[in-house]
Amino acid sequence: MRSVDIIQKKRDGGELTASELTFLIDGYSRGDIPDYQMSAWAMAVFFRGMTAKETAALTLAMANSGDQVDLGPISGIKVDKHSTGGVGDKTTLILGPLVASVGVPVAKMSGRGLGHTGGTIDKLESIEGFRTELSREKFMSQVNDIGLSVIGQSGNLAPADKKLYALRDVTATVESIPLIASSVMSKKIAAGADAIVLDVKTGSGAFMKTLEDSEKLASAMVDIGTEVGRNTAAVISDMDQPLGFAIGNALEVQESIETLKGNGPEDLTELCLTLGAHMVVLGGKSDSVQSAKELLREQIRNGAALEKFKSFIAAQGGDDSIADDPARLPQAPVIVEVTSEHSGFVSAIEAEQLGLAAMILGAGRATKDAEIDYAVGVTLRKKVGDSVNAGDTLALLHVRDANDTAKEVAVKVRAAYSFSETKPEPRALLLSVITAQGVQRY
Amino acid sequence: MRSVDIIQKKRDGGELTASELTFLIDGYSRGDIPDYQMSAWAMAVFFRGMTAKETAALTLAMANSGDQVDLGPISGIKVDKHSTGGVGDKTTLILGPLVASVGVPVAKMSGRGLGHTGGTIDKLESIEGFRTELSREKFMSQVNDIGLSVIGQSGNLAPADKKLYALRDVTATVESIPLIASSVMSKKIAAGADAIVLDVKTGSGAFMKTLEDSEKLASAMVDIGTEVGRNTAAVISDMDQPLGFAIGNALEVQESIETLKGNGPEDLTELCLTLGAHMVVLGGKSDSVQSAKELLREQIRNGAALEKFKSFIAAQGGDDSIADDPARLPQAPVIVEVTSEHSGFVSAIEAEQLGLAAMILGAGRATKDAEIDYAVGVTLRKKVGDSVNAGDTLALLHVRDANDTAKEVAVKVRAAYSFSETKPEPRALLLSVITAQGVQRY
Repeated sequence: MRSVDIIQKKRDGGELTASELTFLIDGYSRGDIPDYQMSAWAMAVFFRGMTAKETAALTLAMANSGDQVDLGPISGIKVDKHSTGGVGDKTTLILGPLVASVGVPVAKMSGRGLGHTGGTIDKLESIEGFRTELSREKFMSQVNDIGLSVIGQSGNLAPADKKLYALRDVTATVESIPLIASSVMSKKIAAGADAIVLDVKTGSGAFMKTLEDSEKLASAMVDIGTEVGRNTAAVISDMDQPLGFAIGNALEVQESIETLKGNGPEDLTELCLTLGAHMVVLGGKSDSVQSAKELLREQIRNGAALEKFKSFIAAQGGDDSIADDPARLPQAPVIVEVTSEHSGFVSAIEAEQLGLAAMILGAGRATKDAEIDYAVGVTLRKKVGDSVNAGDTLALLHVRDANDTAKEVAVKVRAAYSFSETKPEPRALLLSVITAQGVQRY
Repeated sequence: MRSVDIIQKKRDGGELTASELTFLIDGYSRGDIPDYQMSAWAMAVFFRGMTAKETAALTLAMANSGDQVDLGPISGIKVDKHSTGGVGDKTTLILGPLVASVGVPVAKMSGRGLGHTGGTIDKLESIEGFRTELSREKFMSQVNDIGLSVIGQSGNLAPADKKLYALRDVTATVESIPLIASSVMSKKIAAGADAIVLDVKTGSGAFMKTLEDSEKLASAMVDIGTEVGRNTAAVISDMDQPLGFAIGNALEVQESIETLKGNGPEDLTELCLTLGAHMVVLGGKSDSVQSAKELLREQIRNGAALEKFKSFIAAQGGDDSIADDPARLPQAPVIVEVTSEHSGFVSAIEAEQLGLAAMILGAGRATKDAEIDYAVGVTLRKKVGDSVNAGDTLALLHVRDANDTAKEVAVKVRAAYSFSETKPEPRALLLSVITAQGVQRY
């Protein structure tokens, strides 16, 4: 087998066999197949696409390229969740305790973020004492004990995907649906979950800008899951503005606590209940999404979800008193108000720009080794559809100093808002659900 | 400027500017832009193509990447010729003296071959004493004196093309018309000619299998020439069987001498007269292709072309007595007859297979450092349309020994012939001519 022939076959529209894809990925992992062949192949895939069979074979080859986590010691159906990312996305912090409270075991390995805010691990580390580096044994026994653990990703999961992704990033081959799908799913499969719920964002603030593309990506991922025997469901939600109000590490923990108490923002709550309901169904704890949603709503009402959050924080050494007294979380010393220069209705908020604003304040990492400031960030006071008078507060910046940087960020946040004279048509948050049975639009 | 953005622009169907293409090629030459970005870009070009403007800009950037030969010291319009290659192609040996004999200066730098037979330089070196390594000064003064010199390619012509071609070869990105066109033309432009005649082959034995693709390639090359101010014409000819009868270095020299004497094979003579006529027109020595052709025919008839060949051989130290006594060329000691097992008409001859046969006998190089045996090769006795009885000789192998290799080659040569019961329709040799004025079919 020669890699140049495999590239040519894909270039000319052929379907690659599992052994050809495995040959490519194994050779690339070992360093026998050079970057310049993989990038030419990736560009050919960009133009020609891949069949569901090819995509599944590629995914498995990448999942097999490194460690494969065995979650066997944990009893029950382990359900993992993955989000395609977004500004202000704190769903993992809420979903973990929420679904664990009804008996679905959540054994999550999560990453640190590079970008707007930290990842889930960084957010959790804003809680004093919270440890994210547990041994594999401690991790599993905690899930067996309290139903939930979240640790930093350790080991060498899907290294071929990591290598290929870095290459795609510099060769303009990121934007290929089968390559994106296999990248996400290879890591999830290597991480050992039995079932996977995917939170796929669509819209101006998301990687996939149109519903059609988002559905294609979601379908590709669900197809992979089906093909490799991991029950998978995807929920597509709007990402035309940030989720909830808070952007920043401790700020998002605080908002998550409010949501677990039943006082969270409507969009965030609704999305968590929907994603959680799918996790509960795949975890075998409910027969229908609708009844699972009711079950979860009740867990919020009766305090069980919050209790689960507290025992989770405590089990990993964190200060669980923050659940009752969120003021104990890191707080920025200075609040800067961003006021509106316009009157009317908020018609759009560029999520990307707000994420960038939070990063400039110190909430995210521009480079891998940058330090995160857990306390800083942005909280929105106005969202799409809200009426605004000139002089009203649009958002608050949580900063260390009201210095020039803060002023620049205020300008950026103000500019992220658009206004209209009439109230905009409300946009639906939840757009479609994709399972092995097909696409179902809301 | 970032190379990833340039790749993405091409990927998305944009037209690259001259400065973007120069940035890519210069960066790649210097080693600042890695192979993996160039191969992804080349694959994007494979799918998206390039406009005439882009192709010309790429060509110039590659021509500028190394030495640029200044043929200024040679008086007159210097016309170069390039063939897209083929089995049994000895046109340069004939065209050089032929057009020089009517006053068109030919200053040709030629390569050694890797493949079926040697290149023009190897063929000339089969003549005892012939030197192909002249100083640049001697080269130019010889052209001024006798109108013709052919030397080995020295210096560093279009190194970016060389580097890019090697990369394309291993990344399945060779088969892109704008990339092929710019590769050929960048070397011709760097070699300094004022005008260029292209001999483009089409058919089963050629790189371009269909007339349509060959015309596209020829048009792309003519467009580049026009765009950069080098008058360019292309002649497309059939390559469904080898050109002439001889395949092998000294064997091809001998056939070239016969052609210059007026006794050459019809197809070879016709192609040389046509290519030569275009060279004479571009060289300003005739107003029309038709009258130029008559002029050249007369130069063969009156012996002027052969005389020019002799003075060219002598000027470079070679034994010019071979022109009158071709038996003085290297001769293989053993002749093996390949006889037909069929009766009927020759319907096709796989040129590629005959080229391979010659290479196995030692006429060509399989690797860069392999030695060439000037004497060996294949001469055809039957060509397409000829009638054959079982037992008739199809071809002769000129070999060192009638050993097992020779027997294997005989089987290969026999298998290259196909037969039909009825005489096949004659195929035209000359198919179309492409100039700045457009495509003209014969």
